[in-house]
Amino acid sequence: MPKFHNKIPEPTLRRLPWYLSYAKIAKQMGEATLSSTQISKQLKVDTSQVAKDLSYVQLQGKPRVGYNINEFIETLGNCLGFANKHNALLFGVGSLGESLLRDNGLTQYGLTIVAAFDINPNIVGKTICDIPIYDISNFATIKQQTQASIGVLTVPVSQAQNVADIMVEQGLQAIWNFTPYRITVPDDVVLQNTSIYAHLAVMFNRIYEKKENKKQHR
Amino acid sequence: MPKFHNKIPEPTLRRLPWYLSYAKIAKQMGEATLSSTQISKQLKVDTSQVAKDLSYVQLQGKPRVGYNINEFIETLGNCLGFANKHNALLFGVGSLGESLLRDNGLTQYGLTIVAAFDINPNIVGKTICDIPIYDISNFATIKQQTQASIGVLTVPVSQAQNVADIMVEQGLQAIWNFTPYRITVPDDVVLQNTSIYAHLAVMFNRIYEKKENKKQHR
Repeated sequence: MPKFHNKIPEPTLRRLPWYLSYAKIAKQMGEATLSSTQISKQLKVDTSQVAKDLSYVQLQGKPRVGYNINEFIETLGNCLGFANKHNALLFGVGSLGESLLRDNGLTQYGLTIVAAFDINPNIVGKTICDIPIYDISNFATIKQQTQASIGVLTVPVSQAQNVADIMVEQGLQAIWNFTPYRITVPDDVVLQNTSIYAHLAVMFNRIYEKKENKKQHR
Repeated sequence: MPKFHNKIPEPTLRRLPWYLSYAKIAKQMGEATLSSTQISKQLKVDTSQVAKDLSYVQLQGKPRVGYNINEFIETLGNCLGFANKHNALLFGVGSLGESLLRDNGLTQYGLTIVAAFDINPNIVGKTICDIPIYDISNFATIKQQTQASIGVLTVPVSQAQNVADIMVEQGLQAIWNFTPYRITVPDDVVLQNTSIYAHLAVMFNRIYEKKENKKQHR
């Protein structure tokens, strides 16, 4: 578990991975140090914002030199939880579920899906990228074996709340909800909603809006 | 193009797909009408919030009856852009890129990836789920042939800004950025950032925080 347990505001947690990505690129390009001014310029984030975001991370920079780039990458990756291994179980091996099983990027960012569940007898018993797929009735046993505490929810919308309830009942600590459905969970369970389809709606709306603006300015 | 071009606030655009999903479930269960009170109760969103969100959509409900469920689903899907077909090109057929090519959910929500690009000669020339993969040098030709206006960015972080610049240069109107890198684009290009790894950081942080709280309360 990382050294830094303080609650970091969500907007900061969304920006910190940008700084980490930039640091990795800078390192690849041979840089040995990194300053918040440099980050600010490159990523077009306000300097004071960068400084504030980085204040949540226990990093010591040197005046007029900046941060040691290796230390920056290690500390930030650790703080964001990417450096740790978190075992997860995936529920619903449809199109999106299968995609996530195939995405090795997740492992690089600290999430290891160790098993998946479905109810379709044509899928149960198979493996995808070495991840075994079980019937959902095996959930309790597999949870104990794998010590997984995170559940990834990729079932059809009509099953989302149902399966989330089972996940909570079996003691999962966090649910990463990829369905476009709003599930509800008890207060002591962490819920992260990631509906890529909702992002699609935002993008479409912005496209239409720009088209309309252009028409009006003709 | 949908009838509703007004700029809808982002939080509303993120909630509207929940209402749509709920309506689809209710329809499956045989309901013929739907009220905002019902939505509010089921999804635990404030009634006044639901009413405000739905005010952006040109829907006429009947007093004490609510919305006709078919009309609700059609109008909302149309308003969110899910009912239209938007052609998109994908850049970078790595693990995540391939996942998105395989996810037929995107098509259901209005985004059709018609071609993909990479620079790896082992991938170029192949198809994934019937989507052809071209060398990036064919971009201009393929863009013209497909009339695609949206680019999906799934290249490695170190190439993100580079490839985004090419996308802008060739006249794509919108970029859906899945990399954890903050790219910058001109004002007239729509940029939608969807870093699932940033969401992972938020989830990890919330899990650590809850663990710490429990320790402190022992």
